[in-house]
Amino acid sequence: MAASDAEDAVGDGDAATAGTETEAMDSLTVVIRAEVLQQVVDQLLTIVDEAIFRIGYDGLSVAAVDPANVGMVDVEVESGAFESVGEGMFPIGLNLQKLDDYISGSSGDDPVTLSYRPETRSIEIEHTNVEVEMSGIDPKTIRDEPDIPEIDHSVEFTVDASVLTDAVENAELVSDHVKFESMVDDEALVVRGHGDTDEIQTVLGADELPNATFDADAEGMYSLPYLVGGSTSGSKYAGILKPLNSGTELRVEFSEEMPVKIYYDFADELGHVMMMIAPRIQNR
Amino acid sequence: MAASDAEDAVGDGDAATAGTETEAMDSLTVVIRAEVLQQVVDQLLTIVDEAIFRIGYDGLSVAAVDPANVGMVDVEVESGAFESVGEGMFPIGLNLQKLDDYISGSSGDDPVTLSYRPETRSIEIEHTNVEVEMSGIDPKTIRDEPDIPEIDHSVEFTVDASVLTDAVENAELVSDHVKFESMVDDEALVVRGHGDTDEIQTVLGADELPNATFDADAEGMYSLPYLVGGSTSGSKYAGILKPLNSGTELRVEFSEEMPVKIYYDFADELGHVMMMIAPRIQNR
Amino acid sequence: MAASDAEDAVGDGDAATAGTETEAMDSLTVVIRAEVLQQVVDQLLTIVDEAIFRIGYDGLSVAAVDPANVGMVDVEVESGAFESVGEGMFPIGLNLQKLDDYISGSSGDDPVTLSYRPETRSIEIEHTNVEVEMSGIDPKTIRDEPDIPEIDHSVEFTVDASVLTDAVENAELVSDHVKFESMVDDEALVVRGHGDTDEIQTVLGADELPNATFDADAEGMYSLPYLVGGSTSGSKYAGILKPLNSGTELRVEFSEEMPVKIYYDFADELGHVMMMIAPRIQNR
Repeated sequence: MAASDAEDAVGDGDAATAGTETEAMDSLTVVIRAEVLQQVVDQLLTIVDEAIFRIGYDGLSVAAVDPANVGMVDVEVESGAFESVGEGMFPIGLNLQKLDDYISGSSGDDPVTLSYRPETRSIEIEHTNVEVEMSGIDPKTIRDEPDIPEIDHSVEFTVDASVLTDAVENAELVSDHVKFESMVDDEALVVRGHGDTDEIQTVLGADELPNATFDADAEGMYSLPYLVGGSTSGSKYAGILKPLNSGTELRVEFSEEMPVKIYYDFADELGHVMMMIAPRIQNR
Repeated sequence: MAASDAEDAVGDGDAATAGTETEAMDSLTVVIRAEVLQQVVDQLLTIVDEAIFRIGYDGLSVAAVDPANVGMVDVEVESGAFESVGEGMFPIGLNLQKLDDYISGSSGDDPVTLSYRPETRSIEIEHTNVEVEMSGIDPKTIRDEPDIPEIDHSVEFTVDASVLTDAVENAELVSDHVKFESMVDDEALVVRGHGDTDEIQTVLGADELPNATFDADAEGMYSLPYLVGGSTSGSKYAGILKPLNSGTELRVEFSEEMPVKIYYDFADELGHVMMMIAPRIQNR
Repeated sequence: MAASDAEDAVGDGDAATAGTETEAMDSLTVVIRAEVLQQVVDQLLTIVDEAIFRIGYDGLSVAAVDPANVGMVDVEVESGAFESVGEGMFPIGLNLQKLDDYISGSSGDDPVTLSYRPETRSIEIEHTNVEVEMSGIDPKTIRDEPDIPEIDHSVEFTVDASVLTDAVENAELVSDHVKFESMVDDEALVVRGHGDTDEIQTVLGADELPNATFDADAEGMYSLPYLVGGSTSGSKYAGILKPLNSGTELRVEFSEEMPVKIYYDFADELGHVMMMIAPRIQNR
């Protein structure tokens, strides 16, 4: 239905001659593969309930900071990852859990059409045989998008997502914080949990960190619920590492008592995620 | 043990010469495949806790209406679907959850023997190496079996159970009611959920409805917990569509603001189910 | 790291010349396959939270009795099942749930190194790339290990673990106790649950009991939560039969109103478990 109209409009610009009521909308319609949109939603849901999507000729851009100001997720999807983009651009605040529900009937390469309806400040979602009219949220009521600080880092490495997740979850067995310790001499990262009675450490060496640059011994301590979810804290969020599967290569940066930044790509390298967790100041 | 005696008795009537105490019972013994009985129980459990089974030479017949009088399930299994039936017929009220438990150790083609014990108003269940003595419930204390109304319908179609379930569950994302709308001109059924802020519709056309007769545009609105279970209402029942798998062809009938009836067959077309959900009168 | 040092020390005794601080410890280090240690932990966790492990040149020995004094588990692992044992022996009280967590990253043949640190009364656990420093519990604060009574039994049989578990779980459908009844004449064991209204029995005959010695008709009644877990009682323990898989051959002994003892082997017949449940005196 509207989906194919929209595609035509984007494709050849002839829609203006069609004289339908959707005409003005076509420049505010994009088509994206279901699995790409799903990854965006899954990653954002680890840290916020609502976010402002900026979608249009330039692709998609969303940045969100959690209510406690500890975690941040920034997602960019280049226009080349879209099946089709309009000539316009629209910002819309969306409830992520609802959006997750509404696209749950689509998967893989299924095209999902998103059309902005400025008069109702809503978005029309179409996929498979499903059509949804979803109300937007006034962007003014959503927490401002964060500035992403530039940080010099002394430690940088790549690691498979599941290897890092396993190491971090080990720490969760004894504590609700995890300490990353770079050991320059050993070219190893120690991921340590320090509990009241017990202590657990997982050592990631050259085998686990294929590209590592360790400029200094550095320690950073981070909240586990933000990384792997709320088993010890009651957080309703899943932890930023949770949507990631084995096979996803992460790039991780941190410095002494500074935020940790975690980067990865998806959608054939056309989607980019940057996540940041503030350090917990150590008091022992 | 008793199971094989019972089968012999049914098979050749020689049991009368055996002079055992089970002799008088043999005419009140039936043998049914586990998977057939399981389907009966699973379907009834979607709407009631207890039901009156009528079992005997004519097969099995159970009808049940839910406590709120909104949903109804009627199950018939022809005698040909039984491994063996006696010459008698017995009615017995049974707790469905317990019956489900007691047959859980049997599966597939396992024969399940049901023998009525009139003196204790109980039923003996035998399968595999398990024997159960299960108390019946006085049929007088169970809600009367419903009359099934004859209803002229203006819309009739067949649809795969999973296709209908998916469409109905989409509506559940925004509402606790679903609206079926027949569109004669498009030969399509729109399954619509109308929420406070959002609206979702799934369009089933010729591909999804292989046999459709649409005599008029009609709308019927139905309660979602009765169809797919209680995520939004706290119902303890599963929803009448829940026991059905992809591959089960449903026949659906409804008319403007009238009940919807859903039919399907099982047990090699020897088992028949009719389910009915009363409409919710629309007030918008 | 320390793991390989420890192995060397055990292997050839050269560690004394290394002059390191771990030197004195080496005789208190053992290496065991992950799956063997996991089985020990899983079986003990069915009955207690904490237990005193005795580990060393003689292998491993743990005995535990549940807080209510109804169930008992005794586990022995011969030194031959270890990859390496020291020349010393150490007793240490351990929290079983934590130990279960700490070895969860290892599996199958992964070697797990356990080193006793007498000065801190702690144990160091090493496997894969994980190192844990786990505090011990003062053995004096842990319930005394039970004496295992010698009992003459009149019934003895072998049975596959899943066959016995299924029979016992059937009884759980109607009661929170199960009765074992040996029938000498039939060479069968009846596993019976007797509920308020319903009764269920599972008959295990020669097919299910390959080696059976029935010296007398005997009945023993046992608490179901201790056997298969707490669905009817709120017990936090899993039931002693729960960690056992199909294919594990159990040897079972009981007598009229006496405890039931259940034995099985694991770790290529080098691990031995004896479990005992006290009888419930029948009062009907």
